[in-house]
Amino acid sequence: METAVLFSGGKDSSFVNIFLKKILPCNIINYTVTFGVNSNWKYAEETAKALEFPFKLFLADLEILERSVDRIEKDGFANDGITFLHKAVIETFVQEINVDIVADGTRRDDRSPKLDLADMRRIEDMYDVSYVAPLMGISYRILKPICFSLFTIKEGPTDLIKKSDYESEIKGLMEKRGLNPNDFFPKHSQSRVIGYRDRDAF
Amino acid sequence: METAVLFSGGKDSSFVNIFLKKILPCNIINYTVTFGVNSNWKYAEETAKALEFPFKLFLADLEILERSVDRIEKDGFANDGITFLHKAVIETFVQEINVDIVADGTRRDDRSPKLDLADMRRIEDMYDVSYVAPLMGISYRILKPICFSLFTIKEGPTDLIKKSDYESEIKGLMEKRGLNPNDFFPKHSQSRVIGYRDRDAF
Repeated sequence: METAVLFSGGKDSSFVNIFLKKILPCNIINYTVTFGVNSNWKYAEETAKALEFPFKLFLADLEILERSVDRIEKDGFANDGITFLHKAVIETFVQEINVDIVADGTRRDDRSPKLDLADMRRIEDMYDVSYVAPLMGISYRILKPICFSLFTIKEGPTDLIKKSDYESEIKGLMEKRGLNPNDFFPKHSQSRVIGYRDRDAF
Repeated sequence: METAVLFSGGKDSSFVNIFLKKILPCNIINYTVTFGVNSNWKYAEETAKALEFPFKLFLADLEILERSVDRIEKDGFANDGITFLHKAVIETFVQEINVDIVADGTRRDDRSPKLDLADMRRIEDMYDVSYVAPLMGISYRILKPICFSLFTIKEGPTDLIKKSDYESEIKGLMEKRGLNPNDFFPKHSQSRVIGYRDRDAF
């Protein structure tokens, strides 16, 4: 099955590649989303290269990032705006790229982005695609040690770890608008995969 | 890892056995829950035998079934009472049976029983166990054809398909109380696994 993994270079979307191969006969291409605000997608490309994963760039319409930042500005916090963005990205993506499966690294314990069931089913039925978030039912107690055995992972505060996730472009657009991203995003730690530690650990 | 699968003899909990083996080094025992209201657990035992799965019976306290039926009677519908029951069963189970993982066949598209994230994390932290619902992130579009290729499945209206799920004992207890289960459960179709169709299909 032709499968697109929405790929940030983090441990979850990296692990999804390995997990999916184990359970389904799938031909995976990793797509990193950019809205053209910065070039952070290059970090995901580096990770994909280090892990020997097929990689492509998906350029999404800046308009949806603008709407996501509108929402975050109005809410005063980021969660719902990030989920809005992810849903809009998936919807744009499946209209442009013809795949059987679109997958992401959403975990059970994530707050955002997280699609709700109604959106998943609407997207699947409307665009004749399967949405798969294979880590959704697995406890963090199990995922964490597997990821740290499989990959070499660089961890640190968000602003020091260069990753290709929504957050960096949202923050970039906020700065262009004269907003301070730190008013909307709590400080948290971030991680990025830089290679295999033991590729047979899972 | 010592793993308990909560097993009804249906296609989801059957598939969980095969799915888990593929992704984790786990030693699985299937446990079918009964409150002693009827002997429907025997159907799950038959299915387990046909699929060559290790099987044990778990006798849970009738008190929690009583409380679940109280809830259903009060609500006028079954969903929340079934979820209450499942949560109480898991909590009792992990207190009595020492395992690393407790797993069930909850699917993304199920309405009930479905634990919420706060309950999963509370149970995991309190009892030092991982709760895993491996089918949670997989679309029904993918699960359905896999299950039907793997297993021979008997389908029909609920009352004709003999399964060892909560529903049959809830209904049994309702009848003892002089209630009509059909006032609380909508008519729906049910399925039961009776053997392998192609055990290498996944």
